[in-house]
Amino acid sequence: MILDRIQRENDIKKIGADDWNPLAEEIREFLINHISTSGGHLASNLGVVELTMAMHLVFDLPKDKLIWDVGHQSYTHKLLTGRKDKFDKLRKFGGMSGFPKRSESPCDSFDTGHSSTSISAGLGYVAARELLGDKNRVVSVIGDGALTGGMAYEALNNASRLKSNFIIVLNDNNMSISENVGGMSQYLSNIRTAEAYTGFKTGVEKTLSKIPVYGDKVIHQLRKTKSGIKQLMIPGMLFENMDITYLGPVDGHDIPGLIRIFNEAKKVNRAVLVHVLTKKGKGYSPAERHPARFHGAEPFEIETGLPSKKRTKANYSDIFSTVMRKFGDRDPKVVAVTAAMPDGTGLKRFKNMFPERFFDVGIAEEHAVTFAAGLAAAGLKPVVAVYSSFLQRAYDQIVHDVCIQNLHVIFAVDRAGLVGSDGETHQGILDISFLSSIPNMTLLAPKNKWELSDMLKFAVDFNGPIAIRYPRGEAYDGLKDFRAPIELGKSEILYDESEIVLIAVGSMVKIAENVRKELKDIGYQCSLVNARFVMPLDETMVKTAAKEHNLIVTLEENVLSGGFGEKVSAYVAACNFPTRVISVGIPNEYVEHGNVDILRKELGIDEPSITKRIITEYLGTQVY
Amino acid sequence: MILDRIQRENDIKKIGADDWNPLAEEIREFLINHISTSGGHLASNLGVVELTMAMHLVFDLPKDKLIWDVGHQSYTHKLLTGRKDKFDKLRKFGGMSGFPKRSESPCDSFDTGHSSTSISAGLGYVAARELLGDKNRVVSVIGDGALTGGMAYEALNNASRLKSNFIIVLNDNNMSISENVGGMSQYLSNIRTAEAYTGFKTGVEKTLSKIPVYGDKVIHQLRKTKSGIKQLMIPGMLFENMDITYLGPVDGHDIPGLIRIFNEAKKVNRAVLVHVLTKKGKGYSPAERHPARFHGAEPFEIETGLPSKKRTKANYSDIFSTVMRKFGDRDPKVVAVTAAMPDGTGLKRFKNMFPERFFDVGIAEEHAVTFAAGLAAAGLKPVVAVYSSFLQRAYDQIVHDVCIQNLHVIFAVDRAGLVGSDGETHQGILDISFLSSIPNMTLLAPKNKWELSDMLKFAVDFNGPIAIRYPRGEAYDGLKDFRAPIELGKSEILYDESEIVLIAVGSMVKIAENVRKELKDIGYQCSLVNARFVMPLDETMVKTAAKEHNLIVTLEENVLSGGFGEKVSAYVAACNFPTRVISVGIPNEYVEHGNVDILRKELGIDEPSITKRIITEYLGTQVY
Repeated sequence: MILDRIQRENDIKKIGADDWNPLAEEIREFLINHISTSGGHLASNLGVVELTMAMHLVFDLPKDKLIWDVGHQSYTHKLLTGRKDKFDKLRKFGGMSGFPKRSESPCDSFDTGHSSTSISAGLGYVAARELLGDKNRVVSVIGDGALTGGMAYEALNNASRLKSNFIIVLNDNNMSISENVGGMSQYLSNIRTAEAYTGFKTGVEKTLSKIPVYGDKVIHQLRKTKSGIKQLMIPGMLFENMDITYLGPVDGHDIPGLIRIFNEAKKVNRAVLVHVLTKKGKGYSPAERHPARFHGAEPFEIETGLPSKKRTKANYSDIFSTVMRKFGDRDPKVVAVTAAMPDGTGLKRFKNMFPERFFDVGIAEEHAVTFAAGLAAAGLKPVVAVYSSFLQRAYDQIVHDVCIQNLHVIFAVDRAGLVGSDGETHQGILDISFLSSIPNMTLLAPKNKWELSDMLKFAVDFNGPIAIRYPRGEAYDGLKDFRAPIELGKSEILYDESEIVLIAVGSMVKIAENVRKELKDIGYQCSLVNARFVMPLDETMVKTAAKEHNLIVTLEENVLSGGFGEKVSAYVAACNFPTRVISVGIPNEYVEHGNVDILRKELGIDEPSITKRIITEYLGTQVY
Repeated sequence: MILDRIQRENDIKKIGADDWNPLAEEIREFLINHISTSGGHLASNLGVVELTMAMHLVFDLPKDKLIWDVGHQSYTHKLLTGRKDKFDKLRKFGGMSGFPKRSESPCDSFDTGHSSTSISAGLGYVAARELLGDKNRVVSVIGDGALTGGMAYEALNNASRLKSNFIIVLNDNNMSISENVGGMSQYLSNIRTAEAYTGFKTGVEKTLSKIPVYGDKVIHQLRKTKSGIKQLMIPGMLFENMDITYLGPVDGHDIPGLIRIFNEAKKVNRAVLVHVLTKKGKGYSPAERHPARFHGAEPFEIETGLPSKKRTKANYSDIFSTVMRKFGDRDPKVVAVTAAMPDGTGLKRFKNMFPERFFDVGIAEEHAVTFAAGLAAAGLKPVVAVYSSFLQRAYDQIVHDVCIQNLHVIFAVDRAGLVGSDGETHQGILDISFLSSIPNMTLLAPKNKWELSDMLKFAVDFNGPIAIRYPRGEAYDGLKDFRAPIELGKSEILYDESEIVLIAVGSMVKIAENVRKELKDIGYQCSLVNARFVMPLDETMVKTAAKEHNLIVTLEENVLSGGFGEKVSAYVAACNFPTRVISVGIPNEYVEHGNVDILRKELGIDEPSITKRIITEYLGTQVY
């Protein structure tokens, strides 16, 4: 294997040009073999094998800084920097991250996970290089999908000031996670197909050629005109207009071609954008045909591309998907907004049934939320479906455009809580804190799949900003018999006893149910409350709970700081009840990648840990 | 007065064309007279008098939707929609807001205050119109400064999908609040000066004119070529590339010209950008010469343009300004980043002394923070100076790019707490909640001007994400003798007694000091603690405070939800101390504009209200 000769960064430079393509094939095989068993991002990684190789051949890591955007496409980079053996534990607890991590390798210059950050971070590195007098290169790689994110444009707008080299590699696969959208995408597509360019050039040249004597001379003169027609005619004018040199487009699977263009780019003493055309899923036909499905893939059979394991139970996104179709039918004012996530959020069925009421705005959470505010101000009922960690990007828009005006925007906050193998950047462990402190926001979390449906109905009939957080993965189908109607600010008492009361939010109700069983088994009386609402807090319930029990235990899958537990505690303290409050939640720290059950155990929010803690602390309370 | 003939929207349509310019002059005089006494946004409003009049002449309000970006330039709009009499209470408590407010008039379609939101909101209105079958026009006005904000670009990117009319008015005054920056600004400037355009056009025409017989025909042919040279030659190609029709540039002070172009724009069945050139401060020479100073002006003398009242005491931004200069001298690794606020934040002096270490990235808070993360990753010590309410826009970048990587970025969070006359959108009342729940973030607040200086020094010598919040306005110069060194996570005990303990954050220390005096006067023993750190919480101090007092009172200028008080309460409840905790802070609601002292009283966080509440509740506690 050629790949075995690569033990660390820059080893690829010892590989002869004849072996480049065979090496690319080996890398593809390696990636397909590993991801088919572990799961992970496949299509994006297959698309950048040659691009990554070419960058490693041209640049000098770790002196040169290579910054990936999102970072899910960094697997070849990891292979070429001595991390081949770590693929066995890719995205597993304690193993290698699926994203760049400065803690893993000095060749990882900047941690990523969310979209559209690499140009900003790269500009920081360039500015530092200028001030510190360093000589390194800075290369930011960004996808055409990530270019729909506004902060990428903010950074491009700033890149124009540069008087020294900064290379932006536009990895254009004509795709976001799903289909790409918007004017920029269309523009890139025009360059890509080269029709506009060729068509126009031919048109002009044909016109001019009708002047036999002067034709050539005219073209020659036109081409010479300063800031003139030649520049206007070349593709990439949009970037040139912003004072960024444009090079390309170049075939992203042609290593010698890529090397040539990168060497050209190194000569430019300003920001230079290299437009690289790649194919998502390249070299594995199921991924080429279904790049969205192989974006973040579950383990699959290599021959067929089909999942190794059929899902038997619906997950929360499926429930959301079904309910949205129903609402779409019932109420023509219900519309749906997604930021490039029609597949992940489950909105695709709504899109297919009500295409004119479905809006995919691209990777642009800020715009998505303010756009929804505009829809609501005009009288519609927008449902913004978004992952918890990505909603972070629209914090100000939630405050400024939705909540100050008290507009009826419904947030379906998917992937709230621990998400597992994507790690730190994707865990949805902050939304209770950041949403519940925004005035006018109502925040709910369902205990099971029926309650998600009921809460969505409640939210659609509500009037004002409202968010429902629900976790990744299988929808809980227990506690079926508890289905009291949803009332604003009212929790649901599942078991009413004495001594200890568990007040659980959303996904933690299931866990609390089991904790309660264990406590009952060893002789404690134990009440169980499904909080339903984080905001407004059901103060009446808390008051009663405090009066009738010796210990309150709050349970949430969110950091403790600013969480549900603090709100309950503050209310108990303000009322001066002598009842002790224990808050179970995620300590104020980031949570790495790994199986959710393992993570829960590590964090002390699994059933045995919680039960043990309650017993210990309750005994502690009694002897206080 | 012609102005008196305008009692409500559309009355301007009864004014004859001959009276338009005199009316514009009357409006200018009205604005200068009023703002010179009340203070407010002057320069931007003087710049859009004719533009606003032209829009009111062409469009039909409130049926048509007019959406302002930021909104501080909406004074003429308010005058033309029947709110002339309300200018006496402009920006005063209970009076008219300085920004558009749907609650004020049906002609205000969307509330604003922050930048770059109008195109997103407008697109929401357009999408709703298409679905609901309405016939109205939607017009979003955006400044060239606001166009540096990424979400404006996200929206432009989406506007390309439109098959129906949507008018974007680019109000280009070649300024942000201060000078505008970046590639887009340069591009617009090129159009504005028309040098690039005229120069090029002349060059080509001259070249072609050398072919006497065929010249005209060639130009004619070239202009006819589909998606060809005409489009390429016209200004605005950058927008055309994104499938947005470009019209302009047009003189923003020529009402008939504006009317013509708006009528043209109405015929376009897609998104159309009308490029309007205006002069900030137009018609008032001090404002024309110093548009940044007259952006948000204090009351001034009309003849000289000088402030009516000289400031005698330094405000916190001044202190920050002085300290930054000192650090700049001492440590070459200290660099400064602002999002279009060199004046407001006080960074201008740093900029003048260390121009190469100063970065104004434009109105682009997201990029500012990730850019700073890049600077920090490369070994520099970036200080990001930003207003509390604008930092909201970079929430995800603080989490994802700074705090997950634990990078040493220093946030100087100005205007934290109540800001007064700018109202809801500008109050800095959420930062304790959103910053203190982010893992790895350290958050401090100084009690007086010396402590701001000490905390900045501590922050520069620190290693990790760290934010210092300080209020708008005069820096407190009391409690001078209390200047114990800053230690991580340690509060400062100012008075150590018994019974009641006041634990105050930042600006509330001064108020707590007076509350304590009043409590002492009527016979209570009272301790006073300057919290210094919100995160990490000084648990040792809280524990001691709880043990040695009957009542803990926390004081903060932030909403209670997710605030400091909840953290103290939660800790007390978790330790099962029987001590009661009262949290003084801003109720979970938005705070309108008005004098800060009045607002404090309304919110119950002024000295008399707090004292009264403590006495009432303390007695309550004793009889529990």
